[in-house]
Amino acid sequence: MTAPLKNDRFLRALLKQPVDVTPVWMMRQAGRYLPEYRASRERAGDFMGLCMNPEMACEVTLQPLERYPLDAAILFSDILTIPDAMGLGLYFETGEGPRFRKAVRSAADIEALPVPDPDKDLGYVMDAVRTIRRELNGRVPLIGFSGSPWTLATYMVEGGSSKDFRLSKAMLYDDPQAMHALLGKLADAVTAYLNGQIRAGAQAVQIFDTWGGNLSAAAYQEFSLVYMQRIVAGLIREQDGRRIPVILFTKNGGLWLERMAEAGADALGLDWMCDIGEARRRVGDKVALQGNMDPSVLYAKPEAIRAEVARILAAYGSGTGHVFNLGHGITPQVDPAHAGAFIEAVHELSARYHG
Amino acid sequence: MTAPLKNDRFLRALLKQPVDVTPVWMMRQAGRYLPEYRASRERAGDFMGLCMNPEMACEVTLQPLERYPLDAAILFSDILTIPDAMGLGLYFETGEGPRFRKAVRSAADIEALPVPDPDKDLGYVMDAVRTIRRELNGRVPLIGFSGSPWTLATYMVEGGSSKDFRLSKAMLYDDPQAMHALLGKLADAVTAYLNGQIRAGAQAVQIFDTWGGNLSAAAYQEFSLVYMQRIVAGLIREQDGRRIPVILFTKNGGLWLERMAEAGADALGLDWMCDIGEARRRVGDKVALQGNMDPSVLYAKPEAIRAEVARILAAYGSGTGHVFNLGHGITPQVDPAHAGAFIEAVHELSARYHG
Repeated sequence: MTAPLKNDRFLRALLKQPVDVTPVWMMRQAGRYLPEYRASRERAGDFMGLCMNPEMACEVTLQPLERYPLDAAILFSDILTIPDAMGLGLYFETGEGPRFRKAVRSAADIEALPVPDPDKDLGYVMDAVRTIRRELNGRVPLIGFSGSPWTLATYMVEGGSSKDFRLSKAMLYDDPQAMHALLGKLADAVTAYLNGQIRAGAQAVQIFDTWGGNLSAAAYQEFSLVYMQRIVAGLIREQDGRRIPVILFTKNGGLWLERMAEAGADALGLDWMCDIGEARRRVGDKVALQGNMDPSVLYAKPEAIRAEVARILAAYGSGTGHVFNLGHGITPQVDPAHAGAFIEAVHELSARYHG
Repeated sequence: MTAPLKNDRFLRALLKQPVDVTPVWMMRQAGRYLPEYRASRERAGDFMGLCMNPEMACEVTLQPLERYPLDAAILFSDILTIPDAMGLGLYFETGEGPRFRKAVRSAADIEALPVPDPDKDLGYVMDAVRTIRRELNGRVPLIGFSGSPWTLATYMVEGGSSKDFRLSKAMLYDDPQAMHALLGKLADAVTAYLNGQIRAGAQAVQIFDTWGGNLSAAAYQEFSLVYMQRIVAGLIREQDGRRIPVILFTKNGGLWLERMAEAGADALGLDWMCDIGEARRRVGDKVALQGNMDPSVLYAKPEAIRAEVARILAAYGSGTGHVFNLGHGITPQVDPAHAGAFIEAVHELSARYHG
């Protein structure tokens, strides 16, 4: 049915199998820094219109692959599709972050939340995965993703973005039982959602824990990591005879890598504050690493970008187990030529560390 | 001339001398969560009016001490007084962060910057320190402070606050020499400024490195930490026969504590992502630690605040060398009664760990 993979470097590196050069992709690679993306979004009307239309989601997913020799595609979608499918009414206001029409503030609110069925309630995402897999036609693997339970919970309790997580942290500390009930429900929903994406054709999945790194070490362990661990344990790990690698990315989680490495994932995503060489020594052979250039280095000139890529490759050292990426999503003001210089530098400069 | 200190717990803990209970203060303790502060600010007209009037700066510095049994006072001022004295024209727009009328964008801009003379160019800060010392009358020690060179540089290059440090990081990576010239000048200015505060009566000083933790590990070392180290080496360390402790606080610097502990400071400030017990093991006997409750715990009920204080005290363990604080500034929406419960819990629950 599906074409064999022409480029499987990304999957091989995640599983610590030998590769010719270090594979590379960029978080938010289908994003506003690309003029063709801005044009598609204009046509779609709004951001969620783009996410909910499988043909258009496919179109923008493939745009960065037309420009650059990237080693993976990532499903174009939003991390808040699950709370939206739970009935909270996601919307975006211009110039502001995501908002929900209904927020979750009490044990009764949590009790009332349904666990969405991916095929029935998030069919547009599953359709997008199938469409993208078909259009990719084996060029590179497709990554599926979800937000982590804690990250989703912050938006659901706050009713949108937050600077200090006032309501979600008050719930966590005042009523840990209610917070655990919410996180447990979200862990079930994320597990079903990612398994739906895997069945639809995702060849690797990443859990984005954008806000876990804003918790104390103790609260991170209890309210974020254990739920990601539970999800990983419930995921389909082989499909069509091939292992489905799982990547865990806690932004600002550099202090906790040893514990994250025990969660059952194949790889950890690193932000740029971590030295990747130290990170490799700390996690040993347990997991592969993905990262970790400061996305703001892309504001510098191509020579400076190349020097920073060289520094990170040298810090990681020889051998497989490294997927190059930015330490966070690429930002809207980056010059697309600079992103190109970044990707080219990774492929060119990494050959000497392999084979 | 000056009254002897009635409560020197704070200074003793920073120097790892025995104390009866763990001393406590809160970053931004003179802040918008206090109705009396909001009234003073209203009277002053604006934020810089408050900073520039020594009598009013003294008034708001003392407000939290009237309410709570805090173990230290901190000079009320802004971290951007130095760039303002360099001629950049600091101003605040309602609802926005700080802004400068002139930004620093080139080697020529940097060359043209003067190093301010604290007494001549920042006399209002020195006057505020003297006024507060007089009014404190030995009740508790007074902390002076400055922003770190890297933190100041980001505002100066961006022309204000920034999300991704686009211009300052582009300068760092494209023209490291220019960035080093700027940071060197700022290190000289901060050294002179803190020494001015010490001569005027500050009994401890803290360097706020608010944005160092947004750099890669390598860039942090080269562009933030070395300049703080240079400042510490240039500070007056004894005044009126008493040691002047220096506290280094890099927000989000938990990965780099070992290196920070070598910078010559007496204590490190910790944000709440670090486990303070692990931090103590990592830095050993080299420095005292200050921190580290998540400020958002103050949104929870007093019982939950008390439980979190107990957890942090237990994590630190027995003996001196701990100054309790929040992991970052107290936020405007906190109920003042909750801040009171926090301070009371530290004093009450810490006695068993001492003497």
